Amino acid sequence: MPEGPTLSELGETELIRRLGAFAPVGQFGDDAALLGAALLDPAGGADLQLVVNTDVLVEDVHFSAATMGARDVGWRAAAANLSDLAAMGCCDAVGLTVGLVAPGDTPWAWVEQAYAGLTELLGAHGGVLLGGDCSGGRQRLLAITAIGRLAGGPGGPIRRGDARPGDQLVCTGAHGLSRLGLAVLRGEALPALAPAVQERAISAHRRPVPRFDAVAALGASRPEALTWRVAGCDSSDGLAAAASCLALASGCTALIDCRSLPLAPELAGLATAEDWCLWGGEDFELVLALEPTWAAALVEQLPGSRCIGRMGVPQSEGPLVWSDGGEAIPTPSASFQHFG
Amino acid sequence: MPEGPTLSELGETELIRRLGAFAPVGQFGDDAALLGAALLDPAGGADLQLVVNTDVLVEDVHFSAATMGARDVGWRAAAANLSDLAAMGCCDAVGLTVGLVAPGDTPWAWVEQAYAGLTELLGAHGGVLLGGDCSGGRQRLLAITAIGRLAGGPGGPIRRGDARPGDQLVCTGAHGLSRLGLAVLRGEALPALAPAVQERAISAHRRPVPRFDAVAALGASRPEALTWRVAGCDSSDGLAAAASCLALASGCTALIDCRSLPLAPELAGLATAEDWCLWGGEDFELVLALEPTWAAALVEQLPGSRCIGRMGVPQSEGPLVWSDGGEAIPTPSASFQHFG
Repeated sequence: MPEGPTLSELGETELIRRLGAFAPVGQFGDDAALLGAALLDPAGGADLQLVVNTDVLVEDVHFSAATMGARDVGWRAAAANLSDLAAMGCCDAVGLTVGLVAPGDTPWAWVEQAYAGLTELLGAHGGVLLGGDCSGGRQRLLAITAIGRLAGGPGGPIRRGDARPGDQLVCTGAHGLSRLGLAVLRGEALPALAPAVQERAISAHRRPVPRFDAVAALGASRPEALTWRVAGCDSSDGLAAAASCLALASGCTALIDCRSLPLAPELAGLATAEDWCLWGGEDFELVLALEPTWAAALVEQLPGSRCIGRMGVPQSEGPLVWSDGGEAIPTPSASFQHFG
Repeated sequence: MPEGPTLSELGETELIRRLGAFAPVGQFGDDAALLGAALLDPAGGADLQLVVNTDVLVEDVHFSAATMGARDVGWRAAAANLSDLAAMGCCDAVGLTVGLVAPGDTPWAWVEQAYAGLTELLGAHGGVLLGGDCSGGRQRLLAITAIGRLAGGPGGPIRRGDARPGDQLVCTGAHGLSRLGLAVLRGEALPALAPAVQERAISAHRRPVPRFDAVAALGASRPEALTWRVAGCDSSDGLAAAASCLALASGCTALIDCRSLPLAPELAGLATAEDWCLWGGEDFELVLALEPTWAAALVEQLPGSRCIGRMGVPQSEGPLVWSDGGEAIPTPSASFQHFG
């Protein structure tokens, strides 16, 4: 046995940091990889900027037959990938490739349904199945790589590290509903919920939607006086984790105003509502840091979006601070660990 | 349990055919996906054509700790992927993303070595690590997606279906050495081999090289009178499988002249030499069908390449025919089955 730590001992954050050392400086800093004109076409000429994102979804780690059918697995896998493209500033997707691994005794019907869900998502939100590979293996998994175009014209990429103190924090929609859906599907103890509420929660969990529309609204709402500078990522790991991530990458503090939490109305009355809103994850909204006039214009233009706080100057308490009626409360990052 | 066949019952070829039905027509016909200007930039403007290729490499299916260290696994995974880009007509690679799956008790040292091998290949043959994802799982695997540029100017893609009767079949190098290396590593019964021969064979198996140089030579050797039309694929599944694949996709017969087999000289005297040359696989050379004057010019320009046969009109005996001194011998396709 080689000496040194195992992947569980390292943890995911440290593993990604170490893997990033094999890539060009800054290449691993965002939700997805930006392929600028210099990388795509060193000889010059191409005005195109692409974004490439790879996500691996493993059975019993990222999805489970207990909470999701094959069609949902396919939809969700594609949606998560396209959400990362949106989080980088893409208005649409070119398409994606799929590496499928499954044991030989996997029914074709499962694979067929997974690809049906995947192409259903693409049909509704853009992009085509470009290609892929398949192999036998001990566990079902989908390794998806999506390619998107950056919006042309005066637009640019959305990067995690581009926030500045004084920016407003905007999120594009309500949070916590996906976590409620998971609770319903898992049979967790819950107060009685109306069937329509259960249905909306389950659908939020199984059928998330990439927010390309929010990227379009972002471009359309930019005040003419401002050049392009937008920090952001998606909230797949949770709203607080997203804000923390922008703060860390930008060297700022993120202050979430607890009086303005974007609680999904379906969570009303639940004791876990605030927790699920902040830490539930899998809502796949965008969390953006914007110059205040731009933030106001976006919130006015995009229904469901709201200002949830602001970026501040770095403080000693840590990168993410939850401002509760003026009182600053440090909160730890608690992103999902896949090697746990 | 759902009804219907399992993946083993379907087999890989039929599985890929069924998955292709979820993609645009023709999208699944080649070694990799071609992203033409229309797909990349529907609004027009971009003159760029990209190729995207996804390969999944699973432990105990595609690689084994018994025959390969982690560094070789990484090199080979990247090389196999870039070979598919070359087989589509790319002169170089932009880079690749890696989806890493491994059990939590995997030593970091293994992952570090795999990424070192991968970036060693990229450093030597072009491209950078663009990004990726990682997850726990029951089995180690690398899901790699590589992106390459098509050579600009009068060049174009290399497609499987572009061969015509009368084309010459050219391969870019010797075959069978990788299979010999595997035999040495597995301790298969072999006549005594000189240490230098064993070393070359093992290196061929562990450290294959993508033939971007052959694509450059292909472009440089094109007779001015000819427009771009090249059929081809790589010989990762074996030389005969590659020829068969071109024949099937082009509606031709492929006639391999057994007096011109591109036997690796290290196989001299081995009873299995011809078999390993034709069916051994993993040599990662290019197999091309070209108009005869172009084929002659390429063979003259590219050391190690040779004409191995020709494309003929379809015959009833099957798509691939091995012409043995004038006698036509049908040979079945025997590509590697990953769900067996």
